[in-house]
Amino acid sequence: MKLSKLVIGCCAFALAHGVIAQPAASTKPDDRIKARQAAFTVIASNVGKIKSNLDGEYKKEDVLVSAAIIQSLAHSDVASWFPSGTEKGNGFHETQVKADLFDPANAKKARDAANNFNEQADQLAVIAAIGDKDAVQAQFGKLRGTCKGCHDSFRVDSTSAAPAPAAK
Amino acid sequence: MKLSKLVIGCCAFALAHGVIAQPAASTKPDDRIKARQAAFTVIASNVGKIKSNLDGEYKKEDVLVSAAIIQSLAHSDVASWFPSGTEKGNGFHETQVKADLFDPANAKKARDAANNFNEQADQLAVIAAIGDKDAVQAQFGKLRGTCKGCHDSFRVDSTSAAPAPAAK
Repeated sequence: MKLSKLVIGCCAFALAHGVIAQPAASTKPDDRIKARQAAFTVIASNVGKIKSNLDGEYKKEDVLVSAAIIQSLAHSDVASWFPSGTEKGNGFHETQVKADLFDPANAKKARDAANNFNEQADQLAVIAAIGDKDAVQAQFGKLRGTCKGCHDSFRVDSTSAAPAPAAK
Repeated sequence: MKLSKLVIGCCAFALAHGVIAQPAASTKPDDRIKARQAAFTVIASNVGKIKSNLDGEYKKEDVLVSAAIIQSLAHSDVASWFPSGTEKGNGFHETQVKADLFDPANAKKARDAANNFNEQADQLAVIAAIGDKDAVQAQFGKLRGTCKGCHDSFRVDSTSAAPAPAAK
């Protein structure tokens, strides 16, 4: 693992531009659903890993890595993971998204939720790098709050206040 | 999207320490398999997005975001995604890993493959930030070579020289 390269890569990535992902063109709805389910599974897995660190032995490097993964996914524009045509369908399993998310009346609410997740993920990455466990715990709570808020509004059968197990 | 925070976060993440993830303790094998399938799906999705950019309209910001996601996952220590006990099992589907990967005689080969992926992902993130399409194309080929090499050695029914569709 070449630290110098990682530093250059991360900084260059961040500095380059506005960094907003566009949805890829011409893909099948079920492929898009699969991709978003995979992304949310990765997020949940890394939320679980951070929780394991907070509940048990705290390994700063592990928390940093997980926070960076969550941050990088947050910056791929979560709102774009829900294009028109993916209201229903099967990726790895049937999508759990509510139709409400696709209601134009909720567009601002959905965008605000994605932006909030983004901002809290950025903050978690910063605080994880400092490494104070209590500060990470506090910020982690804010990040989870953004997950829960969106799940409560837009996910069917939302039981997700608790993160998924740290399955990696 | 707060660029300043992202810069601080990425740099702090990279600078902080050796940044090697440890596998989370006490998780079910099928959960671990699901997590690694999700992670590889996210990687494949973002490989596909980069390919779409190289084959069509090149959007530097999109490529940067995808390269950063691949890089962040590479830094979570891909070799650790295959702990003992996950030789067989079902995550989202039956695992495609070959038993060869768990043969101690192949441990160095597997570790080298993971490190190679890591290094090529780092390089891709650096080059993507510079933004020269031809240079990205060349480095992207090297990254895909590491995917193919590992799939050829360690994945059942490997047909994966081509990336998955950009399903996000």
